[in-house]
Amino acid sequence: MENGVKKLNFQATQTQDMSDASAITVRGVLNNVMGNLNKDDHREVIPLGNGDPSLFPCFRTTIAAEDAVIETLRSAEYNCYAPTVGLLPARRAIADYLNSDLPYKLSPDDVYVTIGGTQAIEIAITVLSSPGANILLPKPGFPYYEARAAVSHLEARHFNLLPESGWEVDLEAVEALADENTVAMVIINPGNPCGNVYSYEHLKKIAETARRLGVLVIADEVYSHLAFGSNPFVPMGTFGSISPVLTLGSISKRWIVPGWRLGWLVTSDPNGILQKSGIVESIKGALNVTADPVTFIQRAVPQILENTKPDFFSKIIGLLREDADTCCDKIKEIPCITCPNKPEGSMFVMVKLNVELLEDIADDMDFCFKLAQEESVIVLPGVTMGLRNWLRITIAVEASALEDGLERMKAFCLRYAKKQQAMNSIQT
Amino acid sequence: MENGVKKLNFQATQTQDMSDASAITVRGVLNNVMGNLNKDDHREVIPLGNGDPSLFPCFRTTIAAEDAVIETLRSAEYNCYAPTVGLLPARRAIADYLNSDLPYKLSPDDVYVTIGGTQAIEIAITVLSSPGANILLPKPGFPYYEARAAVSHLEARHFNLLPESGWEVDLEAVEALADENTVAMVIINPGNPCGNVYSYEHLKKIAETARRLGVLVIADEVYSHLAFGSNPFVPMGTFGSISPVLTLGSISKRWIVPGWRLGWLVTSDPNGILQKSGIVESIKGALNVTADPVTFIQRAVPQILENTKPDFFSKIIGLLREDADTCCDKIKEIPCITCPNKPEGSMFVMVKLNVELLEDIADDMDFCFKLAQEESVIVLPGVTMGLRNWLRITIAVEASALEDGLERMKAFCLRYAKKQQAMNSIQT
Repeated sequence: MENGVKKLNFQATQTQDMSDASAITVRGVLNNVMGNLNKDDHREVIPLGNGDPSLFPCFRTTIAAEDAVIETLRSAEYNCYAPTVGLLPARRAIADYLNSDLPYKLSPDDVYVTIGGTQAIEIAITVLSSPGANILLPKPGFPYYEARAAVSHLEARHFNLLPESGWEVDLEAVEALADENTVAMVIINPGNPCGNVYSYEHLKKIAETARRLGVLVIADEVYSHLAFGSNPFVPMGTFGSISPVLTLGSISKRWIVPGWRLGWLVTSDPNGILQKSGIVESIKGALNVTADPVTFIQRAVPQILENTKPDFFSKIIGLLREDADTCCDKIKEIPCITCPNKPEGSMFVMVKLNVELLEDIADDMDFCFKLAQEESVIVLPGVTMGLRNWLRITIAVEASALEDGLERMKAFCLRYAKKQQAMNSIQT
Repeated sequence: MENGVKKLNFQATQTQDMSDASAITVRGVLNNVMGNLNKDDHREVIPLGNGDPSLFPCFRTTIAAEDAVIETLRSAEYNCYAPTVGLLPARRAIADYLNSDLPYKLSPDDVYVTIGGTQAIEIAITVLSSPGANILLPKPGFPYYEARAAVSHLEARHFNLLPESGWEVDLEAVEALADENTVAMVIINPGNPCGNVYSYEHLKKIAETARRLGVLVIADEVYSHLAFGSNPFVPMGTFGSISPVLTLGSISKRWIVPGWRLGWLVTSDPNGILQKSGIVESIKGALNVTADPVTFIQRAVPQILENTKPDFFSKIIGLLREDADTCCDKIKEIPCITCPNKPEGSMFVMVKLNVELLEDIADDMDFCFKLAQEESVIVLPGVTMGLRNWLRITIAVEASALEDGLERMKAFCLRYAKKQQAMNSIQT
């Protein structure tokens, strides 16, 4: 076929799925909120939006982790490509690390090394997608699941987390939502965005529900071990013999190194159901057609996991516990914001915004845009996670920054308070 | 809906597209070939399969690059998440690096930092995919394009590279293949798998053809500057004003650090057509829903690009040129293998296998499996790249390993040579 000079064919190739998916990610929304910052405000920007405290000196990662990476880099033995499933020493070390909390033994073959928790989510969603299938996601949740489900044309159905029950899963809603096309349900524990930590008993009930429904559990444990309240962290894989679990994890949060992009996807499945059902082969296939984590960082994983002293972890837990106290105390001083549950894990708290008490604030999104512009404080609108007129606040920042940020938020709320209401709240 | 105990829903979720795609990647095939190695052969395995010489001491990367990464890691300022498009200093440095070979100036906004060339391909294919669209790919080529096109349901059509014309693009075939649904054509220069380097004139003709057809050019320049023959490396972006170009690059090959996973996707498009057509927005959207390169490695890019001495590059070029000579000389000694073009760039050569001269060798795949098993030499069957009964040989290994590997291949071929034919070839 002979063609003359013609109009460009690729003008029509808008990928609507991709742009819909992109619009609802945490970073997509935060980029927009940050776009509203006022450059003439010379105060420091207080970043209560992201779960990334790495830039605060008190949250610097352990030198042992830096040393481990420098050693593998300097050896020049790990500049090469890595196997698609990950380097064996990294897989073995991650299996050992997880085994100390499990009633059975994972093998290195159960572990796939990923580009942070992000790629672990991407692979899990990709392998579970098929025409007509659906997945159950928590509301509020982490919108990257919705984004990847949109990319893979996997239908997302939402069950509520219940603020009145410490953000536990509404298991009746899960049973009502599921049908024969439901492939999995996602839980995030410790909770993002809610800052809760599930009890052993609740996790067991989740596993039993999943078994009854014939779905697997995707357990997002990116915040594993960041628990500082009454419930200890219990891995969902504990119940892998009740229902198979895909466990997602990362060094990003516990070691405060999200930029190192090192995570894992683990089949916590002592009965080998994921092997038999072909999911394991699909995981390998999906990893074969995507990029890998950096080889020398993979090779440092055994040393990072082994050489980090308990002091480091307890320091971080101590900081987060103090931040949780500070945050709840400060929130009590702000009439239009209430905190149903004090955070006990992860790096976040979900608080409820009463816009009825405010003048000229339409909703949570409007609140966050104006707060960024007027006070240089970044928080994430709840609508991003499916809860309109809530806010996700990151507690994981240096104490003085958290106090400063919440003080500014208070000043902002008082400025926008409806006059009569503000009077009432001062009088009571 | 109430559900009783039931069969697992997710047993049916086989992702056939993904597994089809996975089967044809270079690493998928190499994994299979390497699975055939004989553990009782105590000789060193000679890896002529992958483009990764990093484990040979003579191909060790420059200390300047290692130092740059260690410095940014040790600063503890880059343990954080990076922006989806990449860190600004990295984008600026990559723009500057490319600008020295271009007749116009790229801005940092034209550059997206990616997880190696792999993710750059993934993003390019993703943003160009839409129902009914097709893309023109070279044969032989790099099968990751076919794999990603399969994942994105983008139809792949193949044009030949012509061994009799130094592996130039068959431009008549390109014109014949294209229709109004063709969105792009891919060229890989310096060539993988062919080891060729396109002339200025041929690249210009490619740009003119693309313009006539209304398609954009994806220029895979992962092997940029690895040119050691008569044609210098000319970036396709040189002709960006004729037809918009998406340039894919990486530090993996020129710096011999494929495991560092640092590449780029660049809009080489001085007329801003990709901006107007929405491709730029689609790139940002696609990056928003995928993982990022490691932050501290991104931040080291300016120092890596600036501090690497010309000595390092010329040493690598010198090694590759010697390897190319060695390879062609050795191949001449093997009757059943012919080399139509001596490699002048990248790290590979394509050679033709005459199975008619061999006993008990069915085809190139069979040849590679048996060669691995009997001689512990790994080469890639041409069928992986779409050319049955050809072989891709990596020349980028230490000289003694290359000689040893080709010597073993010669012994293997002589062992399998049909008696009469072998006689003839000795007599001539």
